[in-house]
Amino acid sequence: MDIVFPLYPDYTALDAIGPYEVLSRLPGAKVTFVAAEPGVLRTDTGFLGISADAALADIDRADVLVVPGGTGTRQAMSDEGLVGWIRHIHGTTEWTTSVCTGSLLLGAAGLLTGKKATTHWGAKGELEATGATYVAERVVVHPDEKIITAAGVSAGIDMGLTLAAALAGDDVARAIQLGIEYDPQPPFDSGSEAKADQATVERLIEIMT
Amino acid sequence: MDIVFPLYPDYTALDAIGPYEVLSRLPGAKVTFVAAEPGVLRTDTGFLGISADAALADIDRADVLVVPGGTGTRQAMSDEGLVGWIRHIHGTTEWTTSVCTGSLLLGAAGLLTGKKATTHWGAKGELEATGATYVAERVVVHPDEKIITAAGVSAGIDMGLTLAAALAGDDVARAIQLGIEYDPQPPFDSGSEAKADQATVERLIEIMT
Repeated sequence: MDIVFPLYPDYTALDAIGPYEVLSRLPGAKVTFVAAEPGVLRTDTGFLGISADAALADIDRADVLVVPGGTGTRQAMSDEGLVGWIRHIHGTTEWTTSVCTGSLLLGAAGLLTGKKATTHWGAKGELEATGATYVAERVVVHPDEKIITAAGVSAGIDMGLTLAAALAGDDVARAIQLGIEYDPQPPFDSGSEAKADQATVERLIEIMT
Repeated sequence: MDIVFPLYPDYTALDAIGPYEVLSRLPGAKVTFVAAEPGVLRTDTGFLGISADAALADIDRADVLVVPGGTGTRQAMSDEGLVGWIRHIHGTTEWTTSVCTGSLLLGAAGLLTGKKATTHWGAKGELEATGATYVAERVVVHPDEKIITAAGVSAGIDMGLTLAAALAGDDVARAIQLGIEYDPQPPFDSGSEAKADQATVERLIEIMT
């Protein structure tokens, strides 16, 4: 089972590594990180580089496509080399998926028009501008179109487990959950727009700017 | 604030990337991934490479040390170059931390003798062999010794938020939680040894062997 993660400048690492850590443990999985050109691509913080082991041009199909988000997504949306590749690969996949603002790239490729989808809570307007209808859910599955979108960053772990169950059965997904000891116990409860108070939103804006 | 992640062959990516995604967003953070030699190091699955941007020998101090685990930990425990470096850097840190079997490396460095600590549920015997007392908790904090150990793989996100609060205050940690939209909703509830049934444990062993 070929599972492909496209990277582009200023992606967010956990968007990719959350589902990678789940899906790479599926029996028969082969995971490939790709980019316009092979080599190390830096994340949005600049502190981390992940190796793209193949060029987009080297990959003409995938069973599963996982598109991460990041601050670089807006720039990437106008990169027809990447967006056109996503559109093409989608024609070959069993499942096409995104995490965080990765859904903006699915939207730019025309895959979400008229569909419910999710993204990072801070990007819902941009998602809707692609023709999708934003819903404030953590994982949105379209079984008929074989498309899954996940909310911000850490939601990719929940998406990965949902997808693992669809691909290999609930028992395998449960076993992988135990393997990565995913029994979350966040010390705070501010992880969504609905749960965070206004002071937390303002503090986040301060930190990010 | 210098935050340093040592890598070694066959580490687990999410062990490092969970806390990286939290801690890299702290105001003033500077994160560096290091290894015996700079270059791309492959994870335990072989499907992913992360760039170590400095050599262990280039780094002689850190404010925060985060040691990830992985199937390579057992080999790494007998690498005195790495274990001795951890012991030395610990003498300079504000906080020394581990995720998953990373605690075996803290134990090998002599940092956990007689202390309560945690690790991946499957490695508790190995942790105790280093002189620590295993406790089945997700995050174990020793405020006096400034040591934190986290349970398996995904527990590094919870550890990262706990540490972010200790370093920069609860308000900053809450804001980062909102930024990475950490509002976990696992589709199953099998993420700990206490919650998983025997069939799930057996399925995991099948998958991993």
